[in-house]
Amino acid sequence: MFDKQFSKIAIIGAGNVATHLGLALLKAGQQIHCIYNRDEERGRALASLFGARYINDLTLLNQHDLIILAVSDDAISVIANKLKKSSALVVHTSGTIPLSSLSVIGMNVGIFYPLQTFSKQHAVDFNTIPICVYSTTEEYCQSLFSLASKLSNSVHIINDDQRRKIHIAAVLVNNFSNYLYIKAFDFLSENNLPVQLIKPLIVETALKINDIPPFEAQTGPAKRGDMDTIAKHLDLIKNDKELNELYKMITDRILSMYHSGTTIKS
Amino acid sequence: MFDKQFSKIAIIGAGNVATHLGLALLKAGQQIHCIYNRDEERGRALASLFGARYINDLTLLNQHDLIILAVSDDAISVIANKLKKSSALVVHTSGTIPLSSLSVIGMNVGIFYPLQTFSKQHAVDFNTIPICVYSTTEEYCQSLFSLASKLSNSVHIINDDQRRKIHIAAVLVNNFSNYLYIKAFDFLSENNLPVQLIKPLIVETALKINDIPPFEAQTGPAKRGDMDTIAKHLDLIKNDKELNELYKMITDRILSMYHSGTTIKS
Repeated sequence: MFDKQFSKIAIIGAGNVATHLGLALLKAGQQIHCIYNRDEERGRALASLFGARYINDLTLLNQHDLIILAVSDDAISVIANKLKKSSALVVHTSGTIPLSSLSVIGMNVGIFYPLQTFSKQHAVDFNTIPICVYSTTEEYCQSLFSLASKLSNSVHIINDDQRRKIHIAAVLVNNFSNYLYIKAFDFLSENNLPVQLIKPLIVETALKINDIPPFEAQTGPAKRGDMDTIAKHLDLIKNDKELNELYKMITDRILSMYHSGTTIKS
Repeated sequence: MFDKQFSKIAIIGAGNVATHLGLALLKAGQQIHCIYNRDEERGRALASLFGARYINDLTLLNQHDLIILAVSDDAISVIANKLKKSSALVVHTSGTIPLSSLSVIGMNVGIFYPLQTFSKQHAVDFNTIPICVYSTTEEYCQSLFSLASKLSNSVHIINDDQRRKIHIAAVLVNNFSNYLYIKAFDFLSENNLPVQLIKPLIVETALKINDIPPFEAQTGPAKRGDMDTIAKHLDLIKNDKELNELYKMITDRILSMYHSGTTIKS
């Protein structure tokens, strides 16, 4: 089996993905050789944290064997154009951008997409984070799979089409769920009730899916077909058009999932 | 301070709330004296677990000082009518049913609402679960507050109006989030992708709210105003009318929250 060891790794970017991924690589015994970042202060800070060199010139990256683009989606093609002559394997970490966005570089390109939400204030256990890898050649796929396996127990070879679909699922459970948290926090605050009240429920709702498929874990008035409680809730939020519309839409969908034919739509 | 100690507690019901609440009471050093349940087998099983007596006749409950109705919302008024002559403090555990539903019993009624989702398959740490208590008299409020404080660090005196509003917030973060999990699981399964991929993301998204307010934790294409990714996602799910409509609605709302005036609506 072809299994390239990466001894000189560079990371482009100094945001949350660069930070968490870099830390995971260090923990796995990999060295980060250098960090490139437009903002020098942040780049130097991260390089210092990693015991790496900070560079502000992408042409200095030609001695590396793996270059990880941990940058925003918009910046990927811009940087790819500057890395045209790279002999390193160049990978990006995006959930949506196709592998072809790196094709100006050549065949030595790939994807290294950790499927998780990263934030400065919250440490994550990389070991449990699914990493989706892909590349133009089977050999590079194997190398990336092998590297990812040093960081995580959940590594998957996932092509562009699959990765985009996974990203849609990720938007549903992360972006959209978080939107519901915002609405709930706002609703409680507007009614002078402490948001602390629902925090344990948010966490438990999420933890449940580790033990119970969500279709079985569903509870609440819509699941029960409890039209009386639904009517009372809608009455309580009748002056909040936005919340009312949201409540109706999702409630109708849960009703139709568990009580086919039952609806609150007039 | 008036602080009635409850030495003879009865629980009506043998479902998830009865089970978890009963276990928490036992752990706090309270004894469960008896269990009433329509289904004898389940009632006897729970009574046995609690070292309690199983009864199938509600008139036997008149020697108790606290009767906890851990039954479905529909059953509360039915049972209240049968407990008319009770001298015990009778409380229910519902998020929506008003205290007045127990008023046939007299002034000795209250609410003991643990704000959490309970399931057989998943143990919960009752210590962190908010408990909302209420009663007709200040003395009973104090007694229930005191009892709840033995089980949890988060006890709140919450009236009917407040409790109904909290329940709406709970529906948003529990029922509606879980619905999103169902949709994401279904979408992955339909595309032959493993649901395991998004489980860590679901958990991390929820855990984040302990450190970061959800308004700040928001990420994703809509938060970034990334109309290109949004268009690609909508194209990928164009044949799934239901998912498409859901995606548009929530995305539009996140767009308007962070990018006022930006919309995907035609």
